[in-house]
Amino acid sequence: MSSSLRNYMPERADRFFSGSSAQKSVARTLFESVADFPLICPHGHVDPLLFADASYHFSSPAEFFLIPDHYVFRMLYSQGVPLEAQGVPMNDGEDASAVESDHRKIWQTFVENYHLFQGTPTGLWLRDELHDLFGITEKLTPANAQATYDRISEQLAAPDFTPRKLYEQFQVEVLTTTDAATDTLEHHKTIRESGWDGRIYPTFRPDKVVNGIDQPEWKGQIDLLRDVSGIDIGDYVSYITALEARRDFFREMGATATDHAAETPFTEVLSPKEVDAIFQRGLVGSASADDARRFTAHMLVEMARMSSEDGLVMQLHPGSIRNHNSAVFQRFGADKGADIPHALDFTLNLKTLLDRFGSHPSLRLILFTLDESTSARELAPLAGHYPILRIGPPWWFYDSINGMRNFFAQVMETAGIYNTVGFNDDTRAFASIPTRHELWRRIACDWLAGLLVEGQIDDEDALAMAHALAYGLAKEAYRL
Amino acid sequence: MSSSLRNYMPERADRFFSGSSAQKSVARTLFESVADFPLICPHGHVDPLLFADASYHFSSPAEFFLIPDHYVFRMLYSQGVPLEAQGVPMNDGEDASAVESDHRKIWQTFVENYHLFQGTPTGLWLRDELHDLFGITEKLTPANAQATYDRISEQLAAPDFTPRKLYEQFQVEVLTTTDAATDTLEHHKTIRESGWDGRIYPTFRPDKVVNGIDQPEWKGQIDLLRDVSGIDIGDYVSYITALEARRDFFREMGATATDHAAETPFTEVLSPKEVDAIFQRGLVGSASADDARRFTAHMLVEMARMSSEDGLVMQLHPGSIRNHNSAVFQRFGADKGADIPHALDFTLNLKTLLDRFGSHPSLRLILFTLDESTSARELAPLAGHYPILRIGPPWWFYDSINGMRNFFAQVMETAGIYNTVGFNDDTRAFASIPTRHELWRRIACDWLAGLLVEGQIDDEDALAMAHALAYGLAKEAYRL
Amino acid sequence: MSSSLRNYMPERADRFFSGSSAQKSVARTLFESVADFPLICPHGHVDPLLFADASYHFSSPAEFFLIPDHYVFRMLYSQGVPLEAQGVPMNDGEDASAVESDHRKIWQTFVENYHLFQGTPTGLWLRDELHDLFGITEKLTPANAQATYDRISEQLAAPDFTPRKLYEQFQVEVLTTTDAATDTLEHHKTIRESGWDGRIYPTFRPDKVVNGIDQPEWKGQIDLLRDVSGIDIGDYVSYITALEARRDFFREMGATATDHAAETPFTEVLSPKEVDAIFQRGLVGSASADDARRFTAHMLVEMARMSSEDGLVMQLHPGSIRNHNSAVFQRFGADKGADIPHALDFTLNLKTLLDRFGSHPSLRLILFTLDESTSARELAPLAGHYPILRIGPPWWFYDSINGMRNFFAQVMETAGIYNTVGFNDDTRAFASIPTRHELWRRIACDWLAGLLVEGQIDDEDALAMAHALAYGLAKEAYRL
Repeated sequence: MSSSLRNYMPERADRFFSGSSAQKSVARTLFESVADFPLICPHGHVDPLLFADASYHFSSPAEFFLIPDHYVFRMLYSQGVPLEAQGVPMNDGEDASAVESDHRKIWQTFVENYHLFQGTPTGLWLRDELHDLFGITEKLTPANAQATYDRISEQLAAPDFTPRKLYEQFQVEVLTTTDAATDTLEHHKTIRESGWDGRIYPTFRPDKVVNGIDQPEWKGQIDLLRDVSGIDIGDYVSYITALEARRDFFREMGATATDHAAETPFTEVLSPKEVDAIFQRGLVGSASADDARRFTAHMLVEMARMSSEDGLVMQLHPGSIRNHNSAVFQRFGADKGADIPHALDFTLNLKTLLDRFGSHPSLRLILFTLDESTSARELAPLAGHYPILRIGPPWWFYDSINGMRNFFAQVMETAGIYNTVGFNDDTRAFASIPTRHELWRRIACDWLAGLLVEGQIDDEDALAMAHALAYGLAKEAYRL
Repeated sequence: MSSSLRNYMPERADRFFSGSSAQKSVARTLFESVADFPLICPHGHVDPLLFADASYHFSSPAEFFLIPDHYVFRMLYSQGVPLEAQGVPMNDGEDASAVESDHRKIWQTFVENYHLFQGTPTGLWLRDELHDLFGITEKLTPANAQATYDRISEQLAAPDFTPRKLYEQFQVEVLTTTDAATDTLEHHKTIRESGWDGRIYPTFRPDKVVNGIDQPEWKGQIDLLRDVSGIDIGDYVSYITALEARRDFFREMGATATDHAAETPFTEVLSPKEVDAIFQRGLVGSASADDARRFTAHMLVEMARMSSEDGLVMQLHPGSIRNHNSAVFQRFGADKGADIPHALDFTLNLKTLLDRFGSHPSLRLILFTLDESTSARELAPLAGHYPILRIGPPWWFYDSINGMRNFFAQVMETAGIYNTVGFNDDTRAFASIPTRHELWRRIACDWLAGLLVEGQIDDEDALAMAHALAYGLAKEAYRL
Repeated sequence: MSSSLRNYMPERADRFFSGSSAQKSVARTLFESVADFPLICPHGHVDPLLFADASYHFSSPAEFFLIPDHYVFRMLYSQGVPLEAQGVPMNDGEDASAVESDHRKIWQTFVENYHLFQGTPTGLWLRDELHDLFGITEKLTPANAQATYDRISEQLAAPDFTPRKLYEQFQVEVLTTTDAATDTLEHHKTIRESGWDGRIYPTFRPDKVVNGIDQPEWKGQIDLLRDVSGIDIGDYVSYITALEARRDFFREMGATATDHAAETPFTEVLSPKEVDAIFQRGLVGSASADDARRFTAHMLVEMARMSSEDGLVMQLHPGSIRNHNSAVFQRFGADKGADIPHALDFTLNLKTLLDRFGSHPSLRLILFTLDESTSARELAPLAGHYPILRIGPPWWFYDSINGMRNFFAQVMETAGIYNTVGFNDDTRAFASIPTRHELWRRIACDWLAGLLVEGQIDDEDALAMAHALAYGLAKEAYRL
């Protein structure tokens, strides 16, 4: 029975295309027309150290594929495999000896749970990375796990397997990191001074000095901002001056964009007196949750104002309740696969910002969502009207085949593709970048193929749209 | 490469059908069975003047296709083309000289941005209108823009190119306009008296005398209502009497339906004392936003009561934040492509109205949504139970291929097709009506074809359902 | 025309599979591999009396197919056929003579409205039940309605047409009922004592003693709980003791699960003092709506605590506004097709419960939704992280082809199939169980076939996943 099924599996070159033969032929032709374009990576989380250190090498297969990947360990955790057994490092002060340190064991545990990734994007990425980077074509099984481990380890140690070489091999044209407002960008400086010609740029992400003014950590972040900017921050006005100075520094270091997270897209303009009062309460540790909510709302408008002046493209990623699992957060810290989306409103929440800056000629604001019901209802109508708005690609849980298909189906009719910005790989895992872009390009071409075989677009448009989605839109949208 | 793609584009007769060959064959057969049915147009915004003036002619291609079409100019605006450059007229008091008056220039600007409409319903409608009305088969390009302009201009000026002749050519069976409660329906009278046998009926839309009791314009609307009804409106009771008189007049003029917009479907019944107190505050300009919200909620129930008595089919279109862009509203007025949907609740909000009238034998209430997540969750369960309810077709941003496909997928399993009402073209653009109905009929037949090839329905049901969706349901639902 | 369409209708064996030939071939192979598995029925509403009485016979076709099926009578009601004419029994105190008692007439009314079910799951279930149970292959028409009635009646009366025989014929492996906390489980006792080896187990559903503490009926339910548990319930502590005693009794009777309904998934932990104060207000009839909301929220956490201790799998079905139509509720009682969903939030509402028990090693909590927008946004991210969580299959209005397809598309990429629980038939209609399971298995296999032909999964995974979705997951998830 299994062998009869095998006849229906597509050739590798046709993977992820629709099963219908006409659409598949079109998708293949379109994909071939964009497959060799360089990669534009305008929004990601790769550690710049990888490029600052010209001889950087990845340690083990577990370090390379598993330990830093919350997509992986969250799934095993959900089925009862403790994070400790997966080698996830604990917060300082916790009992680090509880964490598995034998990377071969961690790998084996993973492979024994590999079936959990059936039909998931993580499963597809891993399969393609094993194939494309390591030439591994057999399926992972508990029986071959250790031999595979050896084979990957050997290749990781090879002299050419450095991030800089991979950057060239992957044909990355430009890659941006994400960096705190208080970051000194030392690694970026090292990269510049090294004479290497890879284009690695920072992105200005001020969340820690903007959000959570009611939290105990906030004051420490302001102290860092003071130290790094050399500006004494005693009031709201000097705080703004310090932020503007940091933005200038980021721009000098090549940044073309900022990035902002918030639980909701709520925006509001506070009077100078009100905002300074909240700021002062923040400094003395007496700000309330409502202060924090309003301060973030005000600062989103303020950041739009700065972007309208300095030209940094603004990005807003709302809608995730971060670190939803308190026990995991306390033991392991942030970004442990426990960020959970909730329902959003953009229409009412963004009105204040849009009333001020919606038609500004030099501002660009890219919106992302984790609530797919907002895509057709709010984002596409907003971006199909306001000149400053563009819609970011499917994010986090939606960086998947269905996520992308839904995105095309829900956004494009109302916004058109030119109000979108192509693809963001949004990843910490540098080596997964080509795989992620390829998936996007395949699904985009398959979508276009569907439009063509239904007579919605013609051949000329299909080719132009494929080009834009694979390459042109990202480059233009991020001013790269 | 492009030529190989061209082989996969369908014949024009098969456009918008699924790429799968079996489904396409079925869709074609079903479509052929309904393609020649007359058009029932029970909900639209065509100016009745077009039919009152037997020799009405459209001026230029820009006037015909672009200037009045907010689907068109919103898209160019979103990409930085000012509304002024697109010839959109400004409000009184603004500097009208800023508006481009050269229609050839406006047309050229549009054609240079024609790629923005790739994959959008506007792009499909325009292509089909150019083909069907003007015999234009080449794609619009900046190079052929002026020649095309000439060609269209010539045809617009032809003696037979009048709305009345087009009405007959399009095989419209009946068309309704949308008219303020205070409208004198002069054009409708002229049409009647002209002896022309086209069926053009008004629809009673009392939004301006119902919504916004807290707004400065409201009192003026009540004065208009007084003037047109001849009833002195000093309290809530006389206001209701005036509204009832207007409904009687609309019915005499052929109306079979009313239409109501509201930000939400909230319904509430106020005591006579409460509602009169709010009404009095409205008259003296001291009503609050909460008064306005509650007054609208109360009036929705009151309108249901009137419809249960006089038989006018009630329509409710909630969920749009009108004129979201304050700057555009101030400069250009309403309906400038800046109406943005937001999340809705029908289940809790409509309960008061449904408790009073949900099973009334003569009331019919048609609900529309701009929040697709309500379709399967709320509208289909409600309409699949309450006798008075029917679900209106996909509206505004959802009058598109995906909007229709989602509608069929989300509504029909729970509500069945007989709790829906066929198609509404909902357009100001008279000449786009056949194109819009054809798109609906094609997508409906393609959906039915999918059900048939999956064995969900048989041939007999498919044909009956195609007939109902293309023609029968609209006629019956609107009591035409 | 109709005959040309007939050529495109699939063979019965291929019904509900995708129209594309490759996917259909794969779906067929996968379906054949699971078609003969026994049925696991872990969540349903069949009356245990059917199995307690070894010689139980269904009365008439109307009783068998129509009168108890709110999917059926709600649809006719929505098109103006009164519930009385459909034989739906009224509440005590109402005028029972208004209810049609002639089952032949009820059947005829139904058949005359049979077209309302075109394209609905009810239409598919009925067609398949008529075929599979009664060998009826002609379509129901008003002309053949009475002959069909006769034929079904005859078969219903046959000696072998008892629930016990059908249980065996259907290859049911285990079936659970749903029972109030105060139920004495007499029928379950009878079944046990009869020596029949069918596995019929109760499920503990305490809604009536947990929800609605502000309602006049609540105190009577507590009295019942006192009587059945033999525990004098004078305060919150004794109430908890009584509930725990009932759970123990249910477990002795074979229960492996509990079931909980709530309007929202709101959870909260009240202090012992607060909760007892609310409980005391409930006893004296002075609890408020807010008391009721908080008491339910607190009790959900309490039930999670009990499940973590006694191992009963906890199920939560939030999001339905029960008995939305007040007039129908008053005249006919609960469960009359007027339960209407509304928008839900799980992310914020469940946080309190998850902070306490989200990673508990022996707790399992299965979540269901009626708000599909929560599936990808909240349920899949939550279940793809928290060890205790699993996602229940599409429920109530979503127990349909589109509901299932959406479920697979929205849940599996983020949660993986192993965080789901296979199928629940959730039905009162015992004889519809095989049909419902077959629909699920067909749609699941068609989904897997789509993944295979797109190269997302291989043959080996497809077979394993089909097995899990059809059989293994339900058995494991419910600890059966």
